[in-house]
Amino acid sequence: MKKKVLIVGGVAGGASAAARLRRLDEEAEIILFERDDYISFANCGLPYYIGGAINKRERLMVQTPEDMKARFNIDVRIRSEVIKLDTDNKKVLVKSQSRGTYEESYDSIVLSPGAKALRPNIPGIDSKRILTLRNIPDTDAIKGIVDQKGVHSAIVIGGGFVGVEMAENLRERGLNVTLVEAAPHILAPFDTDMVVLAEKKLVDHGIRLILSDGVKSFQDLDNQVEVTLASNTKLQGDFIILAIGVTPDTGFLKESGLELGPKGHLIVNESMETNIPHVYAVGDAVEVLDYITKTKMAIPLAGPANKQGRIAADNIAGLNSTYKGTQGTAILKIFDLTAASTGANERTLQRANLPFHVIHIHPVSHASYYPNAYPMTLKLIFGNDGKIFGAQGIGGDGVDKRIDVIATVIRLGGSIEDLTELELAYAPPFSSAKDPVNMAGYVAQNVLSGKAHMMVWDDLKKIDEDYIFVDVRTKVEFAMGHVEGAINIPVDDLRQRIQELDPEKLIIVYCQVGLRGYFADRILSQKGYRVLNLTGGYTTYSIQGF
Amino acid sequence: MKKKVLIVGGVAGGASAAARLRRLDEEAEIILFERDDYISFANCGLPYYIGGAINKRERLMVQTPEDMKARFNIDVRIRSEVIKLDTDNKKVLVKSQSRGTYEESYDSIVLSPGAKALRPNIPGIDSKRILTLRNIPDTDAIKGIVDQKGVHSAIVIGGGFVGVEMAENLRERGLNVTLVEAAPHILAPFDTDMVVLAEKKLVDHGIRLILSDGVKSFQDLDNQVEVTLASNTKLQGDFIILAIGVTPDTGFLKESGLELGPKGHLIVNESMETNIPHVYAVGDAVEVLDYITKTKMAIPLAGPANKQGRIAADNIAGLNSTYKGTQGTAILKIFDLTAASTGANERTLQRANLPFHVIHIHPVSHASYYPNAYPMTLKLIFGNDGKIFGAQGIGGDGVDKRIDVIATVIRLGGSIEDLTELELAYAPPFSSAKDPVNMAGYVAQNVLSGKAHMMVWDDLKKIDEDYIFVDVRTKVEFAMGHVEGAINIPVDDLRQRIQELDPEKLIIVYCQVGLRGYFADRILSQKGYRVLNLTGGYTTYSIQGF
Ligand SMILES: Cc1cc2nc3c(=O)[nH]c(=O)nc-3n(C[C@H](O)[C@H](O)[C@H](O)COP(=O)(O)OP(=O)(O)OC[C@H]3O[C@@H](n4cnc5c(N)ncnc54)[C@H](O)[C@@H]3O)c2cc1C
Ligand SMILES: Cc1cc2nc3c(=O)[nH]c(=O)nc-3n(C[C@H](O)[C@H](O)[C@H](O)COP(=O)(O)OP(=O)(O)OC[C@H]3O[C@@H](n4cnc5c(N)ncnc54)[C@H](O)[C@@H]3O)c2cc1C
Ligand SMILES: CC(C)(COP(=O)(O)OP(=O)(O)OC[C@H]1O[C@@H](n2cnc3c(N)ncnc32)[C@H](O)[C@@H]1OP(=O)(O)O)[C@@H](O)C(=O)NCCC(=O)NCCS
Ligand SMILES: CC(C)(COP(=O)(O)OP(=O)(O)OC[C@H]1O[C@@H](n2cnc3c(N)ncnc32)[C@H](O)[C@@H]1OP(=O)(O)O)[C@@H](O)C(=O)NCCC(=O)NCCS
Repeated sequence: MKKKVLIVGGVAGGASAAARLRRLDEEAEIILFERDDYISFANCGLPYYIGGAINKRERLMVQTPEDMKARFNIDVRIRSEVIKLDTDNKKVLVKSQSRGTYEESYDSIVLSPGAKALRPNIPGIDSKRILTLRNIPDTDAIKGIVDQKGVHSAIVIGGGFVGVEMAENLRERGLNVTLVEAAPHILAPFDTDMVVLAEKKLVDHGIRLILSDGVKSFQDLDNQVEVTLASNTKLQGDFIILAIGVTPDTGFLKESGLELGPKGHLIVNESMETNIPHVYAVGDAVEVLDYITKTKMAIPLAGPANKQGRIAADNIAGLNSTYKGTQGTAILKIFDLTAASTGANERTLQRANLPFHVIHIHPVSHASYYPNAYPMTLKLIFGNDGKIFGAQGIGGDGVDKRIDVIATVIRLGGSIEDLTELELAYAPPFSSAKDPVNMAGYVAQNVLSGKAHMMVWDDLKKIDEDYIFVDVRTKVEFAMGHVEGAINIPVDDLRQRIQELDPEKLIIVYCQVGLRGYFADRILSQKGYRVLNLTGGYTTYSIQGF
Repeated sequence: MKKKVLIVGGVAGGASAAARLRRLDEEAEIILFERDDYISFANCGLPYYIGGAINKRERLMVQTPEDMKARFNIDVRIRSEVIKLDTDNKKVLVKSQSRGTYEESYDSIVLSPGAKALRPNIPGIDSKRILTLRNIPDTDAIKGIVDQKGVHSAIVIGGGFVGVEMAENLRERGLNVTLVEAAPHILAPFDTDMVVLAEKKLVDHGIRLILSDGVKSFQDLDNQVEVTLASNTKLQGDFIILAIGVTPDTGFLKESGLELGPKGHLIVNESMETNIPHVYAVGDAVEVLDYITKTKMAIPLAGPANKQGRIAADNIAGLNSTYKGTQGTAILKIFDLTAASTGANERTLQRANLPFHVIHIHPVSHASYYPNAYPMTLKLIFGNDGKIFGAQGIGGDGVDKRIDVIATVIRLGGSIEDLTELELAYAPPFSSAKDPVNMAGYVAQNVLSGKAHMMVWDDLKKIDEDYIFVDVRTKVEFAMGHVEGAINIPVDDLRQRIQELDPEKLIIVYCQVGLRGYFADRILSQKGYRVLNLTGGYTTYSIQGF
């Protein structure tokens, strides 16, 4: 019997489900409802179209309704909002611009309504100069403003991925940009020690960054809009991008009998099926299992949405594909910087009460003797048993590769020992004989086996005994700046000068990034000294002081 | 008790072992013998120094003997060749330029003598104009010639990694370069269908490529050298780079009692220990376990050498590190192309009698709507149970990343299903919502589950029934070139025009790369047609015909 399948939402999750379903079932009747004018567009490209890197609007349209009809024989109905789901009678109520309101029945249905930008009830929020970015009409509106003569300044509220991408792209257009973040730091997936590098990059590119200060109110001025922050700081701009997060667009499902999570997300099982049979849900609108902590959370990203759409289609067609959770692998470009992360960060692990260790390394993208090797900072978080919880990388070229490799190890349940054993592709233009990922594994192993005695700068304040601060860099490096109170014994002189150090006292060593500190640690600890090596070295120290 | 450890060979494996051992044992006496003047140099950078990308000779020296002394307290003895190993009495005989011949005893010894370039006994082989490349003196000699006025042409014999890198770098220096390979194709780790892309790149850059033709003899001319090939083709050049492979440099161990493999490689266990206790061996001189086929082979690469050196040091210091085999992950730059591979190729699997499947995809490096997305060809080889045997990638940006990710899955014993589930970092400048690696997994799954009916072009000749050749590309694409005898039904018209096809006949479809062919396959096979889709599509067809 010919199946009738409805799909609600025509972009990442919905269009993926439709296309896959057609490939699996040439006979099914597939109707896709989309509230807006556009389906299958490149959400993730929107900031870059506004910024100009993507220079043709049509490039944003991955598939048109006509394409979807011709190629996949999908009955695409745009300007058609599903306003009610009746799971008892297996039908939906559709409000169509051209056809009015009508019902459509289904055998199976896939819900991929996505999320909408948060617009909280703050005084002045209704100003026309406050815009959010989610779809093509939003993009047209923002680009329309930016393209106007006389528009010079923008305020971006919210330092999440979309906020930071918009700040960058508006800056690329030559605007004066202020980025406001209520939390102490932007980009929540990153820990503080890493994200400061991203923040520095924004500031270096002339973006004004305001942290730890939320919005109290908005007020329209003559040709501008004013934001008053919690601190009473007032900012004026030609317009505002509000990018403080999203909420699942599931309002129309309130009375459907579908189980919703605390924030309105749909609850699904491994097959992406909701509590009601034949009703599937995918994408930003669903809660997923955090792959690391095994708790429920929402991770609104395109990779998961696309994959879940395909899995829902598989299950409708009788295949047993499953979705095993989201680890939150994410990446963004910040001018010439790449920032990427996968798995859990320190905050998440603290919340989940999972004890963890942290190491940082500062490798270069490829063999340092080959041109254009760029430094990166790579942070690895792992458990007492060596299981990898997460990783974060910030740098230039090659950060994406290392995070993808670690994301792969995490997915396959690997450990730091696996990192050391990975056989990755090496030639001078691409990596080093021991890839940064191998190196992260070595350093982590040294920590767990007690060979490296690491501490983070933050822990300095916890030390309540007398200690000697030893800077093991060269004289020149020391002269160019060092931590107050440190004495300078270059690591290469340490064996000769070891008697200058009091064996009774705790020795805290640091170098530029932690490597020579480790060598010093090995020398001293084998000689019976108690040693701690400051991870990230002087580099981390100076950045943190930023 | 203070241990005395000798190390033979001071570069990749040897220097790594020395440095790690010192970190593990501050007290040990560590003596490193190196026959040449240089230790710890960047073998892999040598071609790029000759080519000019690396512009300072000192950049090739990762560590000097003085550095190794200062930092690691290693007694480095250059110009000191170990000429004999007496395992009964645990000592070596050393021929030193400054000290004459002397003995040195050991508690443990690490052998990392590497390999030397093959120089077979061919008439004329002793010509001064025939050079090999392995170390700094070789490099100086070659660079000396290239830098001379009046040197215009070079013949590179051997299309392995070093041969191809040298051909590229000599070409970058403006020379007329001929590359001669006795086998039907260069770069043995790659299968024919992939390596033709690399060969095309060489030819596009003006390198004359001669395949399936070996060297018969050399002959010195007045200012040149002449090569006569098996086909009697004669080539003249100002000099010759002979790069036809390496042989382990283990001649001095013949009477040591150490077990040697058929080609002179040292045989070691997982701890990198030879058949004689306390004698360790690493690097190019040892046989390793092929991680995929579990057979013994030699894979002379820097990553394995460095890691094995560290493992040998661990074991000497009482730690239980093990080396579990080499999967042969390798990469090289060919002008603006990247070619990378990991695991077994078709030839290896045929030899090992392992049945396998092959798929090709042609994704772009990142979201196609974002600037500078480059196409790549990715080949995946996998077993009936979905286990991944190997992968090869040729293209621009991002090939290294995908091969590294697949290499990681292979290392962790993963399957094509794992590929589909990997959660890799996506934003438009870096990837697509479904990364090429995910996509390779999907396509492979479709093959195993019988949803995609693929064939390779090579199999066309095996078909002994009547078939209809259907080109499912657009009219314009078809007009610009197609396979003789094909009829054109664009995939988007297929549902309407299906009655043009005889349901009794085998239908062979192709498109540009295989994607639309797959869509056509799904439509037709569900309608009861027998269909085969040509993998790689017209792109592969035109390249193979190259
Ligand atoms: C500016 C921006 C940049 C982004 N960048 C990235 C990135 O770099 N990497 C990344 O991984 N992710 C990125 N994302 C997130 C990614 O786009 C989403 O995770 C993904 O699109 C979610 O897919 P979805 O199908 O759940 O929702 P959507 O793709 O948003 O599709 C939902 C569709 O459903 C329609 N709809 C909603 N309700 C109804 C209804 N009742 N009836 C009919 N239609 C309805 C909506 O109009 C919408 O078109 C970005 C998002 C934005 C906004
Ligand atoms: C031109 C070139 C490019 C390369 N590019 C790459 C690449 O891009 N990627 C990659 O992975 N690999 C590459 N390799 C291979 C890589 O360099 C080797 O695999 C690696 O160096 C092997 O390490 P090893 O310690 O075994 O030998 P080596 O690094 O060669 O060191 C052996 C040393 O031992 C010394 N020695 C030998 N016998 C004695 C003795 N009896 N007494 C004292 N000393 C002795 C030798 O003089 C030599 O210096 C390249 C090699 C070459 C030559
Ligand atoms: C484009 C869109 C409609 C998905 O359509 P799709 O046809 O499933 O596209 P995909 O590229 O994911 O799938 C390609 C298919 O071809 C197959 N394929 C890919 N290359 C192939 C090749 N060389 N040979 C054979 N088959 C191939 C894959 O296996 C897959 O088929 P399957 O799912 O049946 O296994 C949907 O992803 C979309 O709307 N995207 C834009 C919106 C969006 O994702 N936004 C967020 C990111 S910006
Ligand atoms: C350089 C060479 C001597 C190796 O020396 P090495 O000190 O072992 O160098 P590596 O960079 O591999 O090791 C760095 C060490 O610091 C540690 N480390 C790295 N970054 C660190 C950080 N930020 N904090 C703390 N420790 C760190 C690693 O764990 C490792 O120590 P371990 O082995 O005790 O675990 C050797 O590789 C060599 O001679 N190379 C040149 C020749 C060659 O390899 N040729 C082929 C390729 S071109």
